[in-house]
Amino acid sequence: MSERTLASDLEDAARIGGLPDGGVSRFAFTPELAEVTAWVSDELEGLGLEPETDAAGNFFARWPAGEGKPVMAASHLDTVPHGGHFDGVLGVLTAVDAVRQLRRDGFEPLRPIVVGAFMDEEGPRFGNGLFGSRAFVGDDMSVALANRDAEGVSAADAMRAVGLDPDRIDEANRVADVGAYVELHIEQGPVLDQRGLRIGVVDTITGIYGYRAELRGETNHAGTTPMELRHDALVGAARAVLELRERARADDRLRATVGRLEALPGAKNIVPGACEFTVDLRPADPDQFEAADAWLRATLDRIAAEEGLSASLHVDYAVPAVPMDPAVVAAIEEAAREQGVEPLRMFSGAGHDAMLVAPYVPAGMIFVPSRRGISHSPEEWTDTADCELGARVLAGTLRRLAS
Amino acid sequence: MSERTLASDLEDAARIGGLPDGGVSRFAFTPELAEVTAWVSDELEGLGLEPETDAAGNFFARWPAGEGKPVMAASHLDTVPHGGHFDGVLGVLTAVDAVRQLRRDGFEPLRPIVVGAFMDEEGPRFGNGLFGSRAFVGDDMSVALANRDAEGVSAADAMRAVGLDPDRIDEANRVADVGAYVELHIEQGPVLDQRGLRIGVVDTITGIYGYRAELRGETNHAGTTPMELRHDALVGAARAVLELRERARADDRLRATVGRLEALPGAKNIVPGACEFTVDLRPADPDQFEAADAWLRATLDRIAAEEGLSASLHVDYAVPAVPMDPAVVAAIEEAAREQGVEPLRMFSGAGHDAMLVAPYVPAGMIFVPSRRGISHSPEEWTDTADCELGARVLAGTLRRLAS
Repeated sequence: MSERTLASDLEDAARIGGLPDGGVSRFAFTPELAEVTAWVSDELEGLGLEPETDAAGNFFARWPAGEGKPVMAASHLDTVPHGGHFDGVLGVLTAVDAVRQLRRDGFEPLRPIVVGAFMDEEGPRFGNGLFGSRAFVGDDMSVALANRDAEGVSAADAMRAVGLDPDRIDEANRVADVGAYVELHIEQGPVLDQRGLRIGVVDTITGIYGYRAELRGETNHAGTTPMELRHDALVGAARAVLELRERARADDRLRATVGRLEALPGAKNIVPGACEFTVDLRPADPDQFEAADAWLRATLDRIAAEEGLSASLHVDYAVPAVPMDPAVVAAIEEAAREQGVEPLRMFSGAGHDAMLVAPYVPAGMIFVPSRRGISHSPEEWTDTADCELGARVLAGTLRRLAS
Repeated sequence: MSERTLASDLEDAARIGGLPDGGVSRFAFTPELAEVTAWVSDELEGLGLEPETDAAGNFFARWPAGEGKPVMAASHLDTVPHGGHFDGVLGVLTAVDAVRQLRRDGFEPLRPIVVGAFMDEEGPRFGNGLFGSRAFVGDDMSVALANRDAEGVSAADAMRAVGLDPDRIDEANRVADVGAYVELHIEQGPVLDQRGLRIGVVDTITGIYGYRAELRGETNHAGTTPMELRHDALVGAARAVLELRERARADDRLRATVGRLEALPGAKNIVPGACEFTVDLRPADPDQFEAADAWLRATLDRIAAEEGLSASLHVDYAVPAVPMDPAVVAAIEEAAREQGVEPLRMFSGAGHDAMLVAPYVPAGMIFVPSRRGISHSPEEWTDTADCELGARVLAGTLRRLAS
């Protein structure tokens, strides 16, 4: 049994791909990602698990015990550029630590336990998010494989460079072999931190719907056009921004954001004749989307009619909300209470590998607090005690699911 | 006496610098501008006026009659890129036509009459608007002279190339020699056209105040940040856009425009942590500005406080409103009524050469309709009958001012 601790593991992992600013960069199919994966692999081998890399570059290590489909605890080891010390890697290292605890306790699983690290969850190198988990669930990977990095290297070539055969990526589609799935992750939001809570249990992963909206009015001279004769597209967009905010405020299971907005032609002395903006709509539950989408369309049309504009709305991306499995959620909640902690039921506003796995396998997620909600930054932070508590809750969950 | 008409003059002028799209480009110190100016000069010489070019490249032709300071009717012959057939040139050609009428009528001025064309009112070549009239009123021209065009030629070098000495530009400061000033211009706005009116009499030229505003909040993840914990700078800016519009709507002597707006960092899935936008504020009357400025500052501060943002406001440009002279306004109104037309008192929302002259000389402006308010475009249009009516009103005004 290893003498290592979760805290020392986190420190050591952060050195691999560590940057002078305190951040970490570990991208798909790079030496840094290979190094951290090999290190985790050695650690798990030392705990008696059998490591392997699949056809997509996903890493799995199996505790060969019990029968039937395994219980998997997984996350990812890659990062965004200048990422933090916790996003992804904490889910893998708490799984390692959970195995350590279960070994120490002499636990004998009735089903195999697998610790996993999916390839390229973040996707900054090739613009492919969730690469490994998509291959794992059998998505068509042809576009993802053809995408190139800043040096012009395709994801397929990058795979070949590390000894993987992109033509065989279909062989990574093994989600049907898994019996249950648990992912521990930092919340990446401020809810637990703000409320002083230590464990969140995800009930759904939010839907993610992206739109590009455009309002068209009339470009006019800012000096000579009376206010009442204007058809100012930016004014219409401003109304949309505010109504969207009010709509989301009135529903604590919906989030809505306008992140990008451009008034055209964009001159200080010209009334904007057009305005383009994005709308990011995140309904927590699958049955919320239809109403939110209809509301958005009706609202834009109403504003356009009232302001003498025309409106158009183009769907950019649409990922439906994914509910977690009630039995896995219950197992996590029991494991948390066993640690003397009352967990908070919450939804995940960000996407995770679990989002892809959950439609096929009973799945659940454990959240630990992100200080001030910060993530994807060197300032990302979760207290060591919360990481350790998370590892104990994960161990308790695995014990329940593998019993 | 010439047999030319205003209509044929307008057509001929539009050919000089005319473009395949129907637009016109005549820029400062170019052969096109020299050609149209020479043609106007010949025309006026034929009418018995004495032409000259001043030290800034302004063109003046004097009817040597009467005594004392002259009455000047002026505008400009340069255009914006792909400009229309009326902006600027109509003011000069109606002045030519007015002289034609006064000659035909045997009018004997008690004061000299001067027809003028200021250099580079539009300013696209060097980024110098109102170049000639600024020199005429004695502004410091050092920055304007140093400004360069797209080929790297400075305005000073461009002057030298046409035989002018930029070191002597101070000699153009002759506004004190003028007794009264009238400028006919297209409205460049939709007011006369919308109301079916034919003559506008400008009572003031609006102040033009430009600001760059910035709101700073907190950049956050669009998925993981609950609505109630956001400090969304774009939401704050949207509120400012709408409150500004309401403020201007409630005061028919104030116009306000946000023409440019940028949400930062500008990613579709990130809550904007900053938002920069311009505010163009045009109070028609000098005494309006202070209250409008104070309102803007207080409104931004209030929105910032309510949204948990910080606000800053930087003044980019500030041109106070310039009232026209009541006696000149009255002369224009009488001249219009003499033509059987009831003129509309209105303010000019755009800047004009008259704006610079008016603080020194009793000045007034005559507006003729712009179809659909369009200007600075090949689609700029004023009906020939309205141009001719404008010329008769200008002639009547000159007759009154020179009697």
